[in-house]
Amino acid sequence: MSVDIAVVGATGLVGEALVELLDEGDFPAADIHLLASGESAGKSMPFRGRNLRVRDLAAFDFAKVKLAFFATTAEVVAEYAPRALASGCSVIDLSGSGEGSLVLPVLNAESAELAQLPVLLRAPAAAAAEVGEVLVALASCVELRSLSLTACLSASQLGREGVQELARQTAELLNARPLEPRLVDRQYAFNMLGQVGSVDACGHSAIERRIHDELVELFPGLSGQLQVSCLLAPVFFGDALSLSLRTAEPVDLAAVRQALDAADGIELIEDDYPTVIGDALGQDEIKVGRVRSGFLDPCELNLWIASDNVRKGFGLNAVKLGALLIKHYL
Amino acid sequence: MSVDIAVVGATGLVGEALVELLDEGDFPAADIHLLASGESAGKSMPFRGRNLRVRDLAAFDFAKVKLAFFATTAEVVAEYAPRALASGCSVIDLSGSGEGSLVLPVLNAESAELAQLPVLLRAPAAAAAEVGEVLVALASCVELRSLSLTACLSASQLGREGVQELARQTAELLNARPLEPRLVDRQYAFNMLGQVGSVDACGHSAIERRIHDELVELFPGLSGQLQVSCLLAPVFFGDALSLSLRTAEPVDLAAVRQALDAADGIELIEDDYPTVIGDALGQDEIKVGRVRSGFLDPCELNLWIASDNVRKGFGLNAVKLGALLIKHYL
Ligand SMILES: NC(=O)c1ccc[n+]([C@@H]2O[C@H](COP(=O)([O-])OP(=O)(O)OC[C@H]3O[C@@H](n4cnc5c(N)ncnc54)[C@H](OP(=O)(O)O)[C@@H]3O)[C@@H](O)[C@H]2O)c1
Ligand SMILES: NC(=O)c1ccc[n+]([C@@H]2O[C@H](COP(=O)([O-])OP(=O)(O)OC[C@H]3O[C@@H](n4cnc5c(N)ncnc54)[C@H](OP(=O)(O)O)[C@@H]3O)[C@@H](O)[C@H]2O)c1
Repeated sequence: MSVDIAVVGATGLVGEALVELLDEGDFPAADIHLLASGESAGKSMPFRGRNLRVRDLAAFDFAKVKLAFFATTAEVVAEYAPRALASGCSVIDLSGSGEGSLVLPVLNAESAELAQLPVLLRAPAAAAAEVGEVLVALASCVELRSLSLTACLSASQLGREGVQELARQTAELLNARPLEPRLVDRQYAFNMLGQVGSVDACGHSAIERRIHDELVELFPGLSGQLQVSCLLAPVFFGDALSLSLRTAEPVDLAAVRQALDAADGIELIEDDYPTVIGDALGQDEIKVGRVRSGFLDPCELNLWIASDNVRKGFGLNAVKLGALLIKHYL
Repeated sequence: MSVDIAVVGATGLVGEALVELLDEGDFPAADIHLLASGESAGKSMPFRGRNLRVRDLAAFDFAKVKLAFFATTAEVVAEYAPRALASGCSVIDLSGSGEGSLVLPVLNAESAELAQLPVLLRAPAAAAAEVGEVLVALASCVELRSLSLTACLSASQLGREGVQELARQTAELLNARPLEPRLVDRQYAFNMLGQVGSVDACGHSAIERRIHDELVELFPGLSGQLQVSCLLAPVFFGDALSLSLRTAEPVDLAAVRQALDAADGIELIEDDYPTVIGDALGQDEIKVGRVRSGFLDPCELNLWIASDNVRKGFGLNAVKLGALLIKHYL
């Protein structure tokens, strides 16, 4: 029992991770259609022992599938998601472009379970999903007052071209060639960037706003109590998140550790601290470490998170969401 | 009118910056003695058109000088600072090892001006000095309630060997040679580290504790209201600081910008954000950008700081302190 599905943006970083996850698991997909821009049409990607052709999204008939993952730009979603829905195909949108209910499977899976099909659901940004999963795990032992998040994002935040930009700049510097910034407007290699892309009139970047708005949507109590700063570290992959929570009562660190340890999808690293390379990359768990209170404030809880943003933050959550939706069709 | 001085740890990153700053300015030093371990004895460093010999600290007679900068480990300070003082030589300690008054020239220069000689004064850690200078600038327009600091430190935090470690690891990775972590216990190149060195029983690293304790010493109102997390970014130089302040009243962003703009030693970067490479390195100002309030909380003020930790954070402040002390001798 399975249905036909599509991955839009299959050649991108997130799309490729989705295809891998769908390939590995027992996802109830009969046939899978890999879609991208006309430029990628004709490329092939491995899936369940076969080589699948990537096709041009513009020529695709969404009536062929019941579910489509959109791992592509907001513009492409705006153009094609309505067509998919009109053809009876449900959409899981990873772009953060704003329509439909936002679902974090560990928190509000019922939005997917109760959906009237076809439906458009949104998967949170990787960092919002990662922080969200930790907040769900902590809900039993911490009454949250406010949350401050400093997210050190990676080149992968800028998609495949971001990774290429960092690689090229790094090579230019190490080979003493002239530095030619292209995607990023300055030296990114060996330089910590304090801002991801441009900012709005209030000074917030799009990814800061997305993470903020999504977390407040998932946890309404955070409204007015959530500070988000996103930095871009000169690393290729992963999310590295520094979190500071203020709680209503003094933090019981033992209970916090137990709650994190018991949570599915989270691995607590106790005597050491986790990092993306070595601990998180390619893994299906968020790695959490450095659980500690404040220097003087017992109602302060600090955490450090390393996660594979593409696979865990985006991919796994979207795939879980897809599995919840597909149940309706079977 | 000038006195003889010494720089202990002259061959280190901070010591070298001190020697450069003393060389450039009109610092009232007659003769300068460059001191380091026995291994460096015999090396030479340029100073005011001459090549000065580095000498072995162990053989140095502090009676020859009136002032010594200690840019070296806490152990060396513990052993030699008392000898210096006993010989009538004042000490400016940059190691954070704990004796004497802590002086940030823009805040409490009178501690140096009123000192009974010989005296031991401490210069703050670079990040504490940088945050401190910004807080002094903001004092006129912001009533601070609490402060959250996420400091993305650089390899230079680990001294000259730290810079070498990152360079070697980067070269190993790019040349597909086996990675051999030495000073850092894991892959540091292209990896964001969530912790600097080891942590104490409460989970805080030594540099987090130093920054916290020094800022509370300088700004006692921050006691219990200061959160500090230090990360180690795979970049060679500079401090990249993400600050979030909570204030008693809604923040007047125009007044904040004006105050930062007017402050000596701070450059406000308005339509863009500053970074270490390109903006801060080699400069005598802290570069501040991304001045913004919270998404929903008008009593939240966020800032981003890029600074040359070695030159500006450590060096310039220590040299200013030295100049204040030397006035006593003249
Ligand atoms: N990676 C992250 O960490 C991250 C973070 C925040 C948000 N996101 C969002 O997640 C989505 C995917 O990100 P990504 O990192 O995978 O980006 P990516 O590596 O740049 O991939 C983009 C994908 O979209 C496809 N695409 C672009 N224009 C298209 C068009 N006109 N028609 C059809 N397909 C088109 C590309 O196909 P071609 O290969 O043919 O160009 C590619 O498959 C984006 O919405 C991005 O904003 C990603
Ligand atoms: N760089 C930073 O951002 C930073 C941050 C926080 C704290 N600090 C503190 O600032 C101080 C200097 O840092 P740094 O970055 O300049 O370190 P560094 O590059 O490692 O230099 C250390 C200096 O100390 C000297 N030294 C070490 N052992 C000695 C001994 N037994 N006798 C005499 N000299 C000795 C070294 O001389 P040789 O060359 O002969 O070994 C060298 O000149 C340290 O206390 C460090 O903890 C620095």
